Amino acid sequence: MAENLKTILSSQTKTVEISRDKPTVIIGERINPTGRKKVQAALEAGNFDIIRQDAADQVAAGADILDVNAGVPGADEPTLMRQVMRVVMEVTDVPLSIDSNNTEALKAGLELYEGKALVNSVNGEERSLQAVLGPVKDHGAAVIGLCMDDDGIPETPEARLAVAARIIERATSLGIPIEDVIIDPLTLTMGADSQAGKITLQTIELVIKEFGVNITMGASNISFGLPDRKYINAASVAMAVYAGATCPITNPLVTEIRTAILAADLTLGRDVHAMRWIKAYRQRKAA
Amino acid sequence: MAENLKTILSSQTKTVEISRDKPTVIIGERINPTGRKKVQAALEAGNFDIIRQDAADQVAAGADILDVNAGVPGADEPTLMRQVMRVVMEVTDVPLSIDSNNTEALKAGLELYEGKALVNSVNGEERSLQAVLGPVKDHGAAVIGLCMDDDGIPETPEARLAVAARIIERATSLGIPIEDVIIDPLTLTMGADSQAGKITLQTIELVIKEFGVNITMGASNISFGLPDRKYINAASVAMAVYAGATCPITNPLVTEIRTAILAADLTLGRDVHAMRWIKAYRQRKAA
Repeated sequence: MAENLKTILSSQTKTVEISRDKPTVIIGERINPTGRKKVQAALEAGNFDIIRQDAADQVAAGADILDVNAGVPGADEPTLMRQVMRVVMEVTDVPLSIDSNNTEALKAGLELYEGKALVNSVNGEERSLQAVLGPVKDHGAAVIGLCMDDDGIPETPEARLAVAARIIERATSLGIPIEDVIIDPLTLTMGADSQAGKITLQTIELVIKEFGVNITMGASNISFGLPDRKYINAASVAMAVYAGATCPITNPLVTEIRTAILAADLTLGRDVHAMRWIKAYRQRKAA
Repeated sequence: MAENLKTILSSQTKTVEISRDKPTVIIGERINPTGRKKVQAALEAGNFDIIRQDAADQVAAGADILDVNAGVPGADEPTLMRQVMRVVMEVTDVPLSIDSNNTEALKAGLELYEGKALVNSVNGEERSLQAVLGPVKDHGAAVIGLCMDDDGIPETPEARLAVAARIIERATSLGIPIEDVIIDPLTLTMGADSQAGKITLQTIELVIKEFGVNITMGASNISFGLPDRKYINAASVAMAVYAGATCPITNPLVTEIRTAILAADLTLGRDVHAMRWIKAYRQRKAA
């Protein structure tokens, strides 16, 4: 059983500690034009009002970190990444997760950022390892490692662990501290494979037992194609937190998800006197 | 690690298997006058309409077993238990959990019942062990063992395991098969002690590791005194199912609880092609 590791991220003014001894850290997922045509159109028109709103709303709803993705098809992504990050940093002061599969956009974001950012993401493909880990190391950032490689997402928890191990090995061999690698076990949808959730939970358990690193996961893909997704996402994220996920990427504006994470922390004894629970309840009532 | 055991319960026409390989079994909690003045008054007046409605509604909402408690203060409980059980058996055909701390009421229920009932409950007090286990053995029933004794509910998971061990030892020494003892770890409210949920989850893990028996638990006491209880109960029951609880006692009419249990089964790979999830969704839509 590996020791539980702590990841520290920071903005210019705020520090966030990710650890199984602390309440779960929510990475807000909404600043992402993928699949959001309105956001794409606004960004193409140079209108950042939606971004400002999404940033402020997510932090108000409990996001501790904001994921920033500027992947508009055909756009100059490095430039757009910097623009979106500037807008987000104007209205909030939480640490950012710089999200792109475009290495130049990641570098542009890292160069702009002041503090210790999270890079979303590297995976087990040789090309990804070579492109992403260097800039992560150069900027002293942390990085999310996805359990997939050239052959796609492995079917078994053991094979996903092997990909995590490869990413961790490469990162640490470059001098990135192991605690700055956060593993995403990846989740296929249970709408297509009813074993998908179980495989993800087992991967989380294996990776923690072996490496003790922090674990992120997208908290909504698991229910794709199924009805009443919010209830599935709520239960599965609570179970993932129990398994050891520490920083899910999700939408804190969905009451069922936000409350599931808070209630999971409460049930795991991480909310002394239920003060976070009661505070969030009062916020919901006042909203 | 003990082998996972299966408990079989039955009515005259239906059999229910409780096992960690199967979907979670819901024991409906509502047929219980405790704290429900309207139900008490109706039972005192010999009016069983509420009981009929509660029985039918809970089964329609997914209860696999119905808990029947007839504890009206001052009433002739053995007689009332038989009356309530008859009414319930008129309108539903699921197995029953005969719930009383009055030994004569338990015996009256067991004598009336045809099939294999669950007896709710015995605890680690010498008086309880002596009064309850004999009738359970005589009628070939299964029994819920509560992790408490003359000193109350132990504070630590290890001490609760010790009570479970004592109950299991006494039951098996009388010839009750170990798989017919279902352990309730008990849950204090997190409103008073923020470690209460964690202690319950750890007790579940310990009892399963040691004995492999099935686990029940009241799914709502954990949130007593806190606001927005349904969200806490939903997350904590999903986590308890992941820990190994197999037959929570709860109110399936609360959408958040019913969906949390179904989603936990789905996430654990116990709902092939998500058919139970989709069926329950259609039922909710049609309601």
